[in-house]
Amino acid sequence: MSQAFEQISEQLCFGGTVGIYRHTSSACNCDMRFAAFVPPQAKTQAVPVLYYLSGLTCTEENFITKAGAQRYAAEQGLVLVAPDTSPRGEAVPDEDTWDFGKGAGFYLNATQSPWQTNYRMYSYVVEELPALIAANFPVRGDRAGILGHSMGGHGALICGLKNPEKFRSISAFAPIAAPSRCPWGQKAFTQYLGEDQSAWKDYDASELVLHKADPSRLILIDQGTGDNFYQQGQLLPEAFQIACEQAGQPLSLRMQVGYDHSYYFIATFMGDHIQHHAQALYA
Amino acid sequence: MSQAFEQISEQLCFGGTVGIYRHTSSACNCDMRFAAFVPPQAKTQAVPVLYYLSGLTCTEENFITKAGAQRYAAEQGLVLVAPDTSPRGEAVPDEDTWDFGKGAGFYLNATQSPWQTNYRMYSYVVEELPALIAANFPVRGDRAGILGHSMGGHGALICGLKNPEKFRSISAFAPIAAPSRCPWGQKAFTQYLGEDQSAWKDYDASELVLHKADPSRLILIDQGTGDNFYQQGQLLPEAFQIACEQAGQPLSLRMQVGYDHSYYFIATFMGDHIQHHAQALYA
Repeated sequence: MSQAFEQISEQLCFGGTVGIYRHTSSACNCDMRFAAFVPPQAKTQAVPVLYYLSGLTCTEENFITKAGAQRYAAEQGLVLVAPDTSPRGEAVPDEDTWDFGKGAGFYLNATQSPWQTNYRMYSYVVEELPALIAANFPVRGDRAGILGHSMGGHGALICGLKNPEKFRSISAFAPIAAPSRCPWGQKAFTQYLGEDQSAWKDYDASELVLHKADPSRLILIDQGTGDNFYQQGQLLPEAFQIACEQAGQPLSLRMQVGYDHSYYFIATFMGDHIQHHAQALYA
Repeated sequence: MSQAFEQISEQLCFGGTVGIYRHTSSACNCDMRFAAFVPPQAKTQAVPVLYYLSGLTCTEENFITKAGAQRYAAEQGLVLVAPDTSPRGEAVPDEDTWDFGKGAGFYLNATQSPWQTNYRMYSYVVEELPALIAANFPVRGDRAGILGHSMGGHGALICGLKNPEKFRSISAFAPIAAPSRCPWGQKAFTQYLGEDQSAWKDYDASELVLHKADPSRLILIDQGTGDNFYQQGQLLPEAFQIACEQAGQPLSLRMQVGYDHSYYFIATFMGDHIQHHAQALYA
């Protein structure tokens, strides 16, 4: 594997640095970008790392410019890493919609043609990216957490549930919490994974938690009640809550009255999420 | 004056609301937009208001999405208002450059053709917008502060210096602090105000302060030393510092080592600026 790693930009922010980086991904068979924040504490010691997965249509930039997380990460001493939401480039197959294909990788490994060559965001997020980060940034590889928003909240839940040894802490903003039962998830899973719904269970948090519950990790979820995608039944946090109760998975599902699906909602509760992860990662 | 006032969007954020609004501006003879944050405290009482002026190429959106100011304003109890940077619309004259015309109103009242009909951002910011805010938002009209970035830092300094009765507190991030002596300012002033440089003094902070010093107001300025526009001589904070010393104007000019001109720089020091204004506005 030839893994070219290139810094596109690096800027000071809250005493640390915000950077955009590009590398050749063997998981996705294309060049990938990610954003990273390195807090001031990391100048003298390796610190824990927190992965943030973005939602539909986003790139590696939305989180780092809009979520206001750097202030909290600088206070707590956490590296932040925000990958792109899908494979990219001319050679990567796509569809002319915003909820499938580029910008909508759904953090799974596709098995169906023509998607299976590039759409391997699960392996990218769980294996390739953490290895790259460990090799190039001052992080403690054994201390990682994961969070995300919407499609990225789904990604955080499934990557975290399936890999307790890799991710010590999990949280999500307005996640697609039961993708097999909502239009976004059904569309994506049918094309990426095929018609056989038994294959979907491996990437559905509300199915996974039934046999992957971990009583030692409290999962934090914030959901706005004014979120139109919540109201349309795309997110289904209650389905995840019922599954968690059934499985003995500790969950704090906070319904935030009147908040919508935007980064204004995310920014409002980001401090609580960073605190949630810092507590687990520095324990 | 018919002043249509319309809410384009309103979203919860840090217990308050972020909104985008449109109205018919008599100062600029066109429709104008602005962003506003109303903190939770304003549900029960009128609170002070802080005007933020953006830099070249910006609209009313950059500040409210990227600066991370809402958290601090919610803590301190301040309404935030961020106008656009120039008149807008098909009928408004423009030039095909990024540093003059639309997105580059320079917060002055143009006197030269064809600019003088619409390019009246000084009257807009100092008179029309505060009247509109006072009529439509829960603010204490007698308690207002002003800050800005780059071209908007220039705007904050000149609007604040010229109107001590309207703006109790002033601060700036990387302001164009001596526009008569830098390429951006010379280009804009020549076209908006004409060749006669005596007319420029009324919109140049380093000239104005010589006879508008106010010992009761400490001006706060942050300037990154890694800012390429600073290095190119577009900003000239030292010229303003010398003029302040000469005039007896209290100034805290903080040179922030390594920081650039971006919103990552602004976000890093936004908490200090909001604190600076809150102190004066709640005194």
